[in-house]
Amino acid sequence: MSTTEKPGEPENRTAPTPAPAGVDLSNLDVILRFLLFAASLVAVVVLVTGNQTELVLFQGRPVPQPAKWRYSPAFVYFVVAFSVSGLYSIITTLASLSVIQRPHQKTKFLLHFLFWDALILGIIASATGAGAGVAYIGLKGNSHVHWNKICSAYDTFCKHVAGSLAVGLFGSIVVVLLIFLSAFTLHSRVPK
Amino acid sequence: MSTTEKPGEPENRTAPTPAPAGVDLSNLDVILRFLLFAASLVAVVVLVTGNQTELVLFQGRPVPQPAKWRYSPAFVYFVVAFSVSGLYSIITTLASLSVIQRPHQKTKFLLHFLFWDALILGIIASATGAGAGVAYIGLKGNSHVHWNKICSAYDTFCKHVAGSLAVGLFGSIVVVLLIFLSAFTLHSRVPK
Repeated sequence: MSTTEKPGEPENRTAPTPAPAGVDLSNLDVILRFLLFAASLVAVVVLVTGNQTELVLFQGRPVPQPAKWRYSPAFVYFVVAFSVSGLYSIITTLASLSVIQRPHQKTKFLLHFLFWDALILGIIASATGAGAGVAYIGLKGNSHVHWNKICSAYDTFCKHVAGSLAVGLFGSIVVVLLIFLSAFTLHSRVPK
Repeated sequence: MSTTEKPGEPENRTAPTPAPAGVDLSNLDVILRFLLFAASLVAVVVLVTGNQTELVLFQGRPVPQPAKWRYSPAFVYFVVAFSVSGLYSIITTLASLSVIQRPHQKTKFLLHFLFWDALILGIIASATGAGAGVAYIGLKGNSHVHWNKICSAYDTFCKHVAGSLAVGLFGSIVVVLLIFLSAFTLHSRVPK
């Protein structure tokens, strides 16, 4: 019966020391988690649909030469990472929805969310970095080691890669915001 | 004089609603932040000292051809990112030390730590990913786009890159642990 955020409003009379109500931004949490799901889905779909085949001269004859995401380990890691984050975001969106019905369990959930969000952030940020590192070589090449740029030939493929990376970066920012949100909500429940 | 470790001991009688003492793992926080500083420093130093020059045949004559971290935008990003995290870790180690003296401000600090740790995690995880993506091409090449492996020639350079990436990964894991620690400490201060 000690305190709530809104002064004077008593709640939960049975508990000996109820937590302060704190701010409740559960709806924002659900929205952000759904955004993460959308970003993960789009990132994966855009990348895997970007395969492109071009005719390349080989010993004087034009030979069809495909560019596929599967050819680059960095892009494979990207697809795996964002598949994991997509799955994770479905589970946590449901968890976040269920916790709206059970506000007394919210503190425990916030702790779990923070743990797993941090891990997912590490995974998808590194995947975005790996994809971007390889894509930059594809775009500009690296003359020092004679790695030629390929985006002049594979324009559609590179556009898909660029779009996918941009959405991946957006997804990473969403996870950072989710960590902010959980931290802020947890902090607001600590008595001053 | 306000808080103690042992639960249930009445404390800070002047405040109307004292925070629960919670767990106090400030020492572990300082140690982890120092580890992040050491990892950042080692990652940067090992990468920038890895330059190697080899003789390469060019039009029939051997020509000295250097391999430098500066030649790859991904490695430049890596060095910048870990320089930032090194600087950040110095500042937050001092902040974490100062908060041991002022435990009443700890909750506020934990929130700030969580915010900035999440941001730094995003930066160094993506830098580690970018570096690893490029290093993997250097190690294995990519026959689909005729990017040749270079680690067979530049062995010392590649060893430095690999060492630096391993330490960078370690640094990223340390930041994840820091987020876990702050979240756990904050959670322990919320009344049950």
